[in-house]
Amino acid sequence: MKIKTLVASLIIACGAFTATAQEIAFGAQREGWMRKAEECKPQLKETIVKPKAIVRSVADEAAFQGWRMEQAEPIEALYSSSLKERNTVILDLGDHYTGYFTMKLNHTGMPADAPIRLRLTFGEVPAELNTPFDPYPGGLSRAWLQDEVVQVMRLPEEVKVQRRLACRYVKIEVLATSYFDFRIEDVTFRAITSAHGEAPALAEGTDPMIQKINEIGLKTLAECMQTVYEDGPKRDQRLWIGDLYLEALANAVSYKNHELTKRCLYLLAGMADEEGFLHATVYELPTPMPQINQHTMDYSLLYGVALLEYFKETGDRTTAEELWPVVKYQIDYARTYLKDNIYDVEKQPQYWLVFDWKDDLNRHTPIQGLMTFAIDKSYELATLLGREKEVADWPKLLKDMRKASREAFYDKKRGVMVSGPDSQVSYLSQVWMILSGTLSAKEGARALEYVLSDNSTCYPGSPYAYHYVIEAMMQCGMQERARELLLDYWGGMIKKGADTFWEVYDPNDDKKSPYQFFPINSYCHAWSCTPVYFIYKYPETFQR
Amino acid sequence: MKIKTLVASLIIACGAFTATAQEIAFGAQREGWMRKAEECKPQLKETIVKPKAIVRSVADEAAFQGWRMEQAEPIEALYSSSLKERNTVILDLGDHYTGYFTMKLNHTGMPADAPIRLRLTFGEVPAELNTPFDPYPGGLSRAWLQDEVVQVMRLPEEVKVQRRLACRYVKIEVLATSYFDFRIEDVTFRAITSAHGEAPALAEGTDPMIQKINEIGLKTLAECMQTVYEDGPKRDQRLWIGDLYLEALANAVSYKNHELTKRCLYLLAGMADEEGFLHATVYELPTPMPQINQHTMDYSLLYGVALLEYFKETGDRTTAEELWPVVKYQIDYARTYLKDNIYDVEKQPQYWLVFDWKDDLNRHTPIQGLMTFAIDKSYELATLLGREKEVADWPKLLKDMRKASREAFYDKKRGVMVSGPDSQVSYLSQVWMILSGTLSAKEGARALEYVLSDNSTCYPGSPYAYHYVIEAMMQCGMQERARELLLDYWGGMIKKGADTFWEVYDPNDDKKSPYQFFPINSYCHAWSCTPVYFIYKYPETFQR
Repeated sequence: MKIKTLVASLIIACGAFTATAQEIAFGAQREGWMRKAEECKPQLKETIVKPKAIVRSVADEAAFQGWRMEQAEPIEALYSSSLKERNTVILDLGDHYTGYFTMKLNHTGMPADAPIRLRLTFGEVPAELNTPFDPYPGGLSRAWLQDEVVQVMRLPEEVKVQRRLACRYVKIEVLATSYFDFRIEDVTFRAITSAHGEAPALAEGTDPMIQKINEIGLKTLAECMQTVYEDGPKRDQRLWIGDLYLEALANAVSYKNHELTKRCLYLLAGMADEEGFLHATVYELPTPMPQINQHTMDYSLLYGVALLEYFKETGDRTTAEELWPVVKYQIDYARTYLKDNIYDVEKQPQYWLVFDWKDDLNRHTPIQGLMTFAIDKSYELATLLGREKEVADWPKLLKDMRKASREAFYDKKRGVMVSGPDSQVSYLSQVWMILSGTLSAKEGARALEYVLSDNSTCYPGSPYAYHYVIEAMMQCGMQERARELLLDYWGGMIKKGADTFWEVYDPNDDKKSPYQFFPINSYCHAWSCTPVYFIYKYPETFQR
Repeated sequence: MKIKTLVASLIIACGAFTATAQEIAFGAQREGWMRKAEECKPQLKETIVKPKAIVRSVADEAAFQGWRMEQAEPIEALYSSSLKERNTVILDLGDHYTGYFTMKLNHTGMPADAPIRLRLTFGEVPAELNTPFDPYPGGLSRAWLQDEVVQVMRLPEEVKVQRRLACRYVKIEVLATSYFDFRIEDVTFRAITSAHGEAPALAEGTDPMIQKINEIGLKTLAECMQTVYEDGPKRDQRLWIGDLYLEALANAVSYKNHELTKRCLYLLAGMADEEGFLHATVYELPTPMPQINQHTMDYSLLYGVALLEYFKETGDRTTAEELWPVVKYQIDYARTYLKDNIYDVEKQPQYWLVFDWKDDLNRHTPIQGLMTFAIDKSYELATLLGREKEVADWPKLLKDMRKASREAFYDKKRGVMVSGPDSQVSYLSQVWMILSGTLSAKEGARALEYVLSDNSTCYPGSPYAYHYVIEAMMQCGMQERARELLLDYWGGMIKKGADTFWEVYDPNDDKKSPYQFFPINSYCHAWSCTPVYFIYKYPETFQR
């Protein structure tokens, strides 16, 4: 994209705001930020993938979501036989990929006297190809499901699916044909990623399951690394602050493609709302624009933590200096939600607090903890930049918040943090009070042991939440527990056949979905890649 | 297309044949013929069409096929309202067009957080949009039906339907969406035809219904005039000899785009089978190729008649000279089917005899008549080219065939020609015996009056067949009958709302279909355009 277009895009992006140019926070700088984001846009690396085999779906109660694939025929059989006769065929690319599908079709014998109508369905997991999509019972747009109806008007023809896909399996169904016979001459999947370079090798003797977890984590990360850190290449295909934070952590210890992190930080900053509050998610295409009015307080606060980690990894002071005001604004704004040093979850406008795919999680204690954590980390950034005078009151604020938290939420008798009117005990309340430094390592360990041993606690519903659980365990000296959890949780996905890590994973419910329909779940989801981060960051725990 | 590609195509086209280059009839000339066809390829003329109104489907037993459209809202309402809220909308282009559809979509307010899934259905007639396509009960490929499922990944986006369409109505249904709202900003239909120039004005005072028939006929012809004379722009979209013959007749008296006729004659000749027998149909795309093994004896014989008419119209002796051997071969080959001067319908291989969409029509007498007619006309061509010596035995053959026909098929008592073991009396048996000169004008008139007044005769099922009925009437001095029939039959379609003339029309059965499903019928079909020919050719009968 050329600069001119970018500026135009920015004007479009900002056009939705009501403020005039003068009133927009970081006004003049935004254009430069958007330009920098554009300059950091990575080249996509292409790999040509050929399907490895013809497979068949086998219903199997023991398999993940009730279905597995087994090899039916070598791939050569596809090219040498009639597609019309087969009517339906499932191809296995051999692994999960993100990219573009093309297929060459030709008639055999008499020319095509009529069009062919095909349905192509692309599945990340076997059950996606074996669960009717309609009538669609799910939340989110059904259009994310990767089924395409294609007309092939004449033969030979190269059939191209326009949209980018994320899949391992391709089901081809012949919906309509005529007198002539035809076959597939070639299938190509052009896989793309912006991840380049190699992640470091793990220490010799590393547990094979951890090796496997690392490999799948790296694959998951790479597929989500496109021209931004996407949340998932199948579904939502976009930059969210929370996913960015975790992806950047994993990237920093593996591919080290720091330019992508920089790009994402600038994109988000360049498209903050008119006051300076970050949008939880922004789009790149067709022109960069934010999802207006979509703010999540936890994600906004994590932006500063992501910038801190980026700066510590790269020493890129220019970026950190330029974006520092954005970090400061998130905290200044969040502070307007404090009442007696406690985050007021009733204050209007209320913001979405992501934290986890878990409707019943009470988020009061978690947001109080996360906010404290974010201010703490952002203060560290201020210090590194020599700007601590600008935020001279933050140390006292941190102290006051921690004190208020302990008074409001700490059940000293049981040694756990509670949350909300029903004093809910959840993993995440402990986790965020640990990460925020509100609980000491010893108290944190006690609190975590409590929730681990009490079946009634609200447990995490997503790999995103489990990331913070492991981080909290590491901080409390619970290295063995952390290792066990990583092996159990992410190893559990591998045992169930994961090629990439999933957006949602509940060991007790394969079909769990925050959208009431499991095929719409993303099965290659960035926020699930963080074992990579732990394995490299804490080799003494994980590389053995 | 460049010559090189053309030659390659020809090799491909011929590749299906078993003969070697030396054995192929007209061998060396074919390449030149294909080149000439390419040189005559017309430029397509584009017209930008905007939809005229939002309409609604109204079930109405009195309407053609049970449905009519009524205006619901002005078209401006489409652009100023939410498509998401409407969910379904039908647009009226105001007339039938052939071409390409594009539509601009944009979000209103919050950006699109997810793809949209749409179904677009394009209808030539109202009932097409009101008859479920699936499960598909019809013959021919269901893929001809013009419904497309489209994913719109991001907004704003221009949605383009790749395939060429033929329609008046466009139904847009929202199958899946998400939180954001969106609307259509613009709809464009890029209509194409190769017809250029204006048909002559009709005489003042011409009957208004005849004027209307002429207008609709010209429209039908123009839409079928693409880079070949197509049979129908919705369904089959290709050159057939029979359609070419009638389209060329109508073109010769109206648009006079003789280059297109020339192109089609060369294309067919260049792709005859290795012996020289014409294929009934050939394809232009992706590279020119014949429909191998698809021969129809009646169509092959009509090729010479089409060449004769072309030559008489244009005086283009070069073309007529070059293609004369092709004409001669069709007759020489057909003669191998004669047994005692009667076409042997049992002889192998048996060829499809088109004649009409009428399964119960016995085709023995019709093919005998058509063959006689074709030899007669081809002899006229030979004479004009001074080549009558090459076919010196044809006059005697004609005489013998007519004599044999009268002996075999003429029921002198009733004054009708009969056909087949059950002595079927059909319109077409009379018609072809008249056109062949086997029956005199007087006998012909008597025979036609007989079938017109006898309800048990096998009557025509298609406008294609009715063309020959009218021609036969004109030849027998039945001008008033011909005028009545034209007004009744084609006027009947207009009274039922035709924007273009239909492939199939039975006044007594709106849903008649040779394919067991009326929506797959073509509602703009070349072989129905011939009132244009009659109206200009016989002004004393039709231009009053």
